[in-house]
Amino acid sequence: MKNRIITISREFGSGGRTVGKLAAQKLDIPCYDQEVIEKIAQQSGFSPAYIKEQGEYAVRAGWLSNALASRFSNGLTSQDQLWLIQRKVILELAEKGPCVLVGRCADYILREEADCLTVFIHANMDKRAERIVQVYGEREETPEKRLRDKDKRRAAYYQFYTDMTWGDARHYDVALDSGVFGIEKCVSTLVHLY
Amino acid sequence: MKNRIITISREFGSGGRTVGKLAAQKLDIPCYDQEVIEKIAQQSGFSPAYIKEQGEYAVRAGWLSNALASRFSNGLTSQDQLWLIQRKVILELAEKGPCVLVGRCADYILREEADCLTVFIHANMDKRAERIVQVYGEREETPEKRLRDKDKRRAAYYQFYTDMTWGDARHYDVALDSGVFGIEKCVSTLVHLY
Repeated sequence: MKNRIITISREFGSGGRTVGKLAAQKLDIPCYDQEVIEKIAQQSGFSPAYIKEQGEYAVRAGWLSNALASRFSNGLTSQDQLWLIQRKVILELAEKGPCVLVGRCADYILREEADCLTVFIHANMDKRAERIVQVYGEREETPEKRLRDKDKRRAAYYQFYTDMTWGDARHYDVALDSGVFGIEKCVSTLVHLY
Repeated sequence: MKNRIITISREFGSGGRTVGKLAAQKLDIPCYDQEVIEKIAQQSGFSPAYIKEQGEYAVRAGWLSNALASRFSNGLTSQDQLWLIQRKVILELAEKGPCVLVGRCADYILREEADCLTVFIHANMDKRAERIVQVYGEREETPEKRLRDKDKRRAAYYQFYTDMTWGDARHYDVALDSGVFGIEKCVSTLVHLY
C-alpha cells in the first residue's frame, strides 16, 4: 500500500504553503517544506538560501551558461545535482508515511511512487501582490514585478525538469483559486478530497 | 446584486455535464445545457445539431474558408453570428437567476456580468475513453482518436473567441479531475465551494 501524499504546487504569493500547512494540521500528518530544503542542504553542502533559489527558480539559460556552470566531478551541473538530491529527499520523505509536500516538483517526482493528491493553488495578480507585501514587506521592486519574475522562473524550472506546462489544470487532481475562496475554504476542500 | 452562476467547462468525456446537472439538483437551481442550444437554434434558424458542432468545436481555418463561408447580410461569418447569439442567450439566462451553465464559453461571456463560480472538469485519456464508449457507444474511430480530435477543436474554439488558453488552471476558480475523484465527489466539492 502506497502512502497517501498531498503535493502542493503554487503560484508565488497565493498562500499555497499556508494551505498545505493547515491541511496537514487538520489531517494530523506532517507538512514538509523547510525540512525538504534543510535535508537537501545537508546532503549537498549548499546553503538553504541557495537551494531555495536554485532549486525552484533557476534554469540554465543555454549552452554557454552550461559550459561555464560549476560542475561536480561526475559532469553534472550543480543544478542537475541539486535536482537529483531533491528527488532522493522527496522520495525518502514520501516513504516515511502520509504527508503534505510543498513545492519542489514533488507531484512529478512522486507520480509513480506514491498515492498522491496533486494540488495547484493560484490567485490573480492583485490578490497575490497584496499578500506578498503583507507577508514579505515592501521591496524596491513593485510586487507585480516581483510576481511576474517569480512566475516566469518557476514555470521555466518546472517545464525544464518535468517537461510539463506549469499551471495546466490537467496535470493536477485539483486546482483552486485561493484569492476567490480564501485559505480556509481551500483547506477544507482539500480535507474533503483527501 | 449579481446572480450566482456556476459555469462548467469540461473536456469531452470527463462527465462535466453530469457533474453540472447533479450539482444544480443539489443546489436546487436550474442547469442549462440543451436549453442553450435550443434557444440559439430558435434565434438563429440553424438546427440544434449544427449549433452543437459549430458553436463549440469549429474554428475558421483561415482567409480562404472565411472568404467562402456563408455570410449574413451584416458581413459576419455564420460562426461569428452564432457567437453573438450564444452570448445574448447566455446573458439572458444568467439574468434570470442563479443557475448552472455547461460549456459555450459561459465563463468568458459572464466574466464581468455575474458572480460566477468557474469550474473546469477534466480526466485522463483512459478514463474518458471508457466513458465515451459507455455513454455514446462504439464508433468506427477509436475513442482515443475521437477524444484527441474533440480536444483539439474545443481548445482552438475557446482560444479563438476568448484569447485564453483552454485548460489553464488560472482561468478557473476550481479545476477537478473527475477520473480521480469520481462524479459524486466532484459534485459535493462544487456544492461545498458554491
